[in-house]
Amino acid sequence: MKYLFRNDYSYGAHPKVLSALAQSSMEGNVGYGDDPYCQRAADLIRDMCQCPRADVQFLIGGTQTNFTAIAAFLRPWEGVIAADSSHINGHEVGAVEATGHKILQIAAGNDGKIAPEQIAPILERHKDTHLVKPRLVEIADATESGMVYTKAELTALSEYCRANGLLLFVDGARLGAAMTSPANDLTMADLARLTDAFYIGGTKNGALMGEALVIVNEDLQPDFFRIKKQLGAVLAKGWLLGVQFEALFQDGLYFEMARHANAMAARLQAGLKAKGWKLWVESPTNQVFAVVPDSIKPRIDAVCAYEDWCPAEEPGHTVIRFVSCFQTGKEDVDGLLSALPEL
Amino acid sequence: MKYLFRNDYSYGAHPKVLSALAQSSMEGNVGYGDDPYCQRAADLIRDMCQCPRADVQFLIGGTQTNFTAIAAFLRPWEGVIAADSSHINGHEVGAVEATGHKILQIAAGNDGKIAPEQIAPILERHKDTHLVKPRLVEIADATESGMVYTKAELTALSEYCRANGLLLFVDGARLGAAMTSPANDLTMADLARLTDAFYIGGTKNGALMGEALVIVNEDLQPDFFRIKKQLGAVLAKGWLLGVQFEALFQDGLYFEMARHANAMAARLQAGLKAKGWKLWVESPTNQVFAVVPDSIKPRIDAVCAYEDWCPAEEPGHTVIRFVSCFQTGKEDVDGLLSALPEL
Amino acid sequence: MKYLFRNDYSYGAHPKVLSALAQSSMEGNVGYGDDPYCQRAADLIRDMCQCPRADVQFLIGGTQTNFTAIAAFLRPWEGVIAADSSHINGHEVGAVEATGHKILQIAAGNDGKIAPEQIAPILERHKDTHLVKPRLVEIADATESGMVYTKAELTALSEYCRANGLLLFVDGARLGAAMTSPANDLTMADLARLTDAFYIGGTKNGALMGEALVIVNEDLQPDFFRIKKQLGAVLAKGWLLGVQFEALFQDGLYFEMARHANAMAARLQAGLKAKGWKLWVESPTNQVFAVVPDSIKPRIDAVCAYEDWCPAEEPGHTVIRFVSCFQTGKEDVDGLLSALPEL
Amino acid sequence: MKYLFRNDYSYGAHPKVLSALAQSSMEGNVGYGDDPYCQRAADLIRDMCQCPRADVQFLIGGTQTNFTAIAAFLRPWEGVIAADSSHINGHEVGAVEATGHKILQIAAGNDGKIAPEQIAPILERHKDTHLVKPRLVEIADATESGMVYTKAELTALSEYCRANGLLLFVDGARLGAAMTSPANDLTMADLARLTDAFYIGGTKNGALMGEALVIVNEDLQPDFFRIKKQLGAVLAKGWLLGVQFEALFQDGLYFEMARHANAMAARLQAGLKAKGWKLWVESPTNQVFAVVPDSIKPRIDAVCAYEDWCPAEEPGHTVIRFVSCFQTGKEDVDGLLSALPEL
Repeated sequence: MKYLFRNDYSYGAHPKVLSALAQSSMEGNVGYGDDPYCQRAADLIRDMCQCPRADVQFLIGGTQTNFTAIAAFLRPWEGVIAADSSHINGHEVGAVEATGHKILQIAAGNDGKIAPEQIAPILERHKDTHLVKPRLVEIADATESGMVYTKAELTALSEYCRANGLLLFVDGARLGAAMTSPANDLTMADLARLTDAFYIGGTKNGALMGEALVIVNEDLQPDFFRIKKQLGAVLAKGWLLGVQFEALFQDGLYFEMARHANAMAARLQAGLKAKGWKLWVESPTNQVFAVVPDSIKPRIDAVCAYEDWCPAEEPGHTVIRFVSCFQTGKEDVDGLLSALPEL
Repeated sequence: MKYLFRNDYSYGAHPKVLSALAQSSMEGNVGYGDDPYCQRAADLIRDMCQCPRADVQFLIGGTQTNFTAIAAFLRPWEGVIAADSSHINGHEVGAVEATGHKILQIAAGNDGKIAPEQIAPILERHKDTHLVKPRLVEIADATESGMVYTKAELTALSEYCRANGLLLFVDGARLGAAMTSPANDLTMADLARLTDAFYIGGTKNGALMGEALVIVNEDLQPDFFRIKKQLGAVLAKGWLLGVQFEALFQDGLYFEMARHANAMAARLQAGLKAKGWKLWVESPTNQVFAVVPDSIKPRIDAVCAYEDWCPAEEPGHTVIRFVSCFQTGKEDVDGLLSALPEL
Repeated sequence: MKYLFRNDYSYGAHPKVLSALAQSSMEGNVGYGDDPYCQRAADLIRDMCQCPRADVQFLIGGTQTNFTAIAAFLRPWEGVIAADSSHINGHEVGAVEATGHKILQIAAGNDGKIAPEQIAPILERHKDTHLVKPRLVEIADATESGMVYTKAELTALSEYCRANGLLLFVDGARLGAAMTSPANDLTMADLARLTDAFYIGGTKNGALMGEALVIVNEDLQPDFFRIKKQLGAVLAKGWLLGVQFEALFQDGLYFEMARHANAMAARLQAGLKAKGWKLWVESPTNQVFAVVPDSIKPRIDAVCAYEDWCPAEEPGHTVIRFVSCFQTGKEDVDGLLSALPEL
Repeated sequence: MKYLFRNDYSYGAHPKVLSALAQSSMEGNVGYGDDPYCQRAADLIRDMCQCPRADVQFLIGGTQTNFTAIAAFLRPWEGVIAADSSHINGHEVGAVEATGHKILQIAAGNDGKIAPEQIAPILERHKDTHLVKPRLVEIADATESGMVYTKAELTALSEYCRANGLLLFVDGARLGAAMTSPANDLTMADLARLTDAFYIGGTKNGALMGEALVIVNEDLQPDFFRIKKQLGAVLAKGWLLGVQFEALFQDGLYFEMARHANAMAARLQAGLKAKGWKLWVESPTNQVFAVVPDSIKPRIDAVCAYEDWCPAEEPGHTVIRFVSCFQTGKEDVDGLLSALPEL
């Protein structure tokens, strides 16, 4: 049997989440999110983020949340500034463009982060009204390569955006991993204070599915339900999302799972280094990236599920990714490490 | 406590479905639908429909399935012919138009059905190349008012469409109710033979969520996954849909639940008539429509959850809807009937 | 040779317009509308409309102006209320839907006009957030069947729209015909005061091409150039539009031509009635509609160019349309009348 | 008075074109391009390109032609491969994305050209069905920086595209300049043979406006009129385009004007070099690019109209552009050269 480190959505839901779902199943609930579970889950999130006036909207998946939020927030001639390595710029089959908006790409480094000084030249160039108007900056925390924004970095971005008429939106598919990372110094309240909207990913941290979009900026809140419905993001049995997010946040389960996943990844990362493996980035979250010679890939294939990430700079090498999740055990990490070759 | 007849998506999933989901939760599965559950569920559906070359795609909800299929099948200048009372023309917040396509509406009667002779004048008028090109006929079975297409009717539509270069697509959000209705003489194989694509609704018949889109016409199959992903309709933990549809179809549970819901609705409909209530349509499926004086609505409100459907032709009257589902018990129907006033 | 009454865009431009174009040709002008001609033409229009803060934007054609304005003014979940007989709902190949917006149709009579009491039920029904949000009312003046809105009618519409959060937009492809009609009691200043935006059609009244969009509502003005460019509506040699509109408005040529066309149509309409022809509507502008037996159509075909408009209610009859323009001479009208049969 | 070298759309039309327009003005023509002028102009183009089955469509402007063609040719999940410096990727306000399609950018050099080896890695990466499907390669000839594709280069691109299921589309806004360039060895017939579609720009070479789109690939021809109308690209007085293109091509005027513009640019380029100016690229067409210290820009501003192109690599320097056209005289070039400083 092989060790599973392919991604953080290979298992269903944490048993507490599943059990809450089962319990709610035969109650008879109002549809479309107009139920007490969604209400309570939204309140928990608002409390946690210390933003009582935020609109909390539950959607089903990450790609969907990204394009629905962006389509809701922008006018047709407005564009999104994002890292070239961002999920919206790659693995979403052009969903943002399908809603009509251009992504203005920033060449990010391996860390996947962007900074004000990379945005400034875009703004300068796009004063020309023959180009799209930059209006929203999208970042991910954790980034697609597992890195996290520090409070200083997010504050700088936030201040720059506010000074320049830009909205700041955070893809939080792996927000749990970010928030519980040893490299993190942000609180959920900081996040709400510094951004216009962000989402809290359930899919990649112990829910069957579900993302909680927190729209902090009140100008962006009106009519959100209509566009959510239009874009297929309203679940008929909407309470299924509320039930899960209530289970995730009422006792800190969400952060507990994320912290565990991070710890397992850290153990794996340390073990790989000890075995002489070269890391692509030093990740403080639940994704571990290593640069391996292609010749040993069959040996890795034989013992675990993982993913090819991108070609490495060194010819004949590939960047590969291992991901841990709430379900990853210490014995899985240690078993994998002992099964992998020294390099 | 009130009787729940608001809709057929007020409960979670049938216990067998829930239990299958729970069992799969900790196995570790490949994402995005590339798992054995989806494969087996698709095979069950292909077998049942006797169309071994159909592409079976699992999506999350009905609105989403409608607009994703239509967007995948049409070119930008092509339009959809549908009943004015169709779900796509109303309660989907203009989702079809949001993907760029005009709906050419047919004034349908209370039954919500359309026929070739209503399509013909649209084709005639739209030979003018300054108008959109009609390309796809959308019907629902059961219709939004609970009626079903007979084999003769669907055959006539199908032949007309094929003779006129039109695709035929069936919104099957309540396909279970249609197929198990006493008024039905279609088989699943007939449906596959007579249409280009249709979907089998899980949400409204015992699944947590999920619709199985059956693309029969092979010209419409290529690249469907890409647009499904682009439009947010790919579930990361895709096996959750496969697990449910396997549970629904491996032992006939899907049809068993639908037949039960239909029987409960028939019992309710007969009871209402016996109490002197006036029906809006004589429904053979799980939706029951009655025309009631507005003055008695508070008394109905007091005993059950139901929905206002539309204003009735008679002034001071409203068409209201009761819906049964897999979870509706005989005692619920009889309890409701005894609690409702004579008219 | 046949008399030409097919439409009002069969001839190029009025000689004064052509001569102004020729004169400007070799001057060397700045592109994209940033030239003194556009500036002066916009000023002439603002003065004439007594709205010094209006944004006047020149576009190329009518379909383009309609969808560009609507796409600029609406959010993705918002819809347009319009007559079923409106140009945007028919002969624009679904252009409004192609920008993502649903048209909520009102069944208008032969006059093509709509009134607040027809809008009210749409607003009522669309309080349901599963339907698109009605946001803009589109009318045409003159309407597609040549009728004009009175000041009382437009005032009622305007007040209703403002009381209900609706924008009011006027398709003025034939605004010259409307404004100079004997049935008209509106001034250009009234139009500007009562609406959010409207356009003044050049194409159908003596220009080679060009429509002047007047955006009165200041909330709708920002960034309009960007969406105009995005949708292909910015002419590189933008001064060509300014030159034409300056020529049309500096000495009243626009209204002079429209008045002439109306007079020719009135002469034709009176003549047809005298010959026993049945009118479909009694048009006060430059379009004349008659109901004719299909059997005499070959005789009409033999003497003039005209258009079939729609099937008549009487079996075996068709509504046909004759259109006059700035170039139509009295001798054309009289010649046509003498060549047409008595009915 | 200042010398005008800002662009090639600062003057109206060549006198022969203007005169043909004036002559046609009062004839009375059928609208929407169904006239003999458009027919004859299309035939001239088909003959010149030796592709009798091509569909020749007249549109109004370049941005419009680009997005209309691309929207007509692609399915929603398909993307465009283009140079990062391409017009569609910049100065069209995201028009391609507004029709729903992502542009996959290639980092082109100063010459603005792309080659198969730059496309290959995109195809490799986009085998992943979570990314858009690359389907169309867009190039410009001349490129945005005035360079031309050789027959060898275009053949290589064409063969690569055909071997890989990619369409090849050429933005020919400056096709006249390309075809008459000393660096060119392509014929119009080569262009038709090697591509799926291309357009012949009128706006930038002596027409008031107008682009002739040549759709060579017959699979891409059906229904083009409908999408052209939908996207606002059908001119009501369509013959105005036919008249101009007939005037341009019946006696070789188009190429004569382009050759003249190229010669004027070559004279300017040689003169600048003789004055010690540094070129950004050695352009063989009607655009000349120089790298100048910012300190001398006021002196250039004082004597001519030109454009800033982009910041130069050298700090404190800017790339500027001079453009010649059919109207540029030798005396303008020599006058400008004598007015400019030595460097």
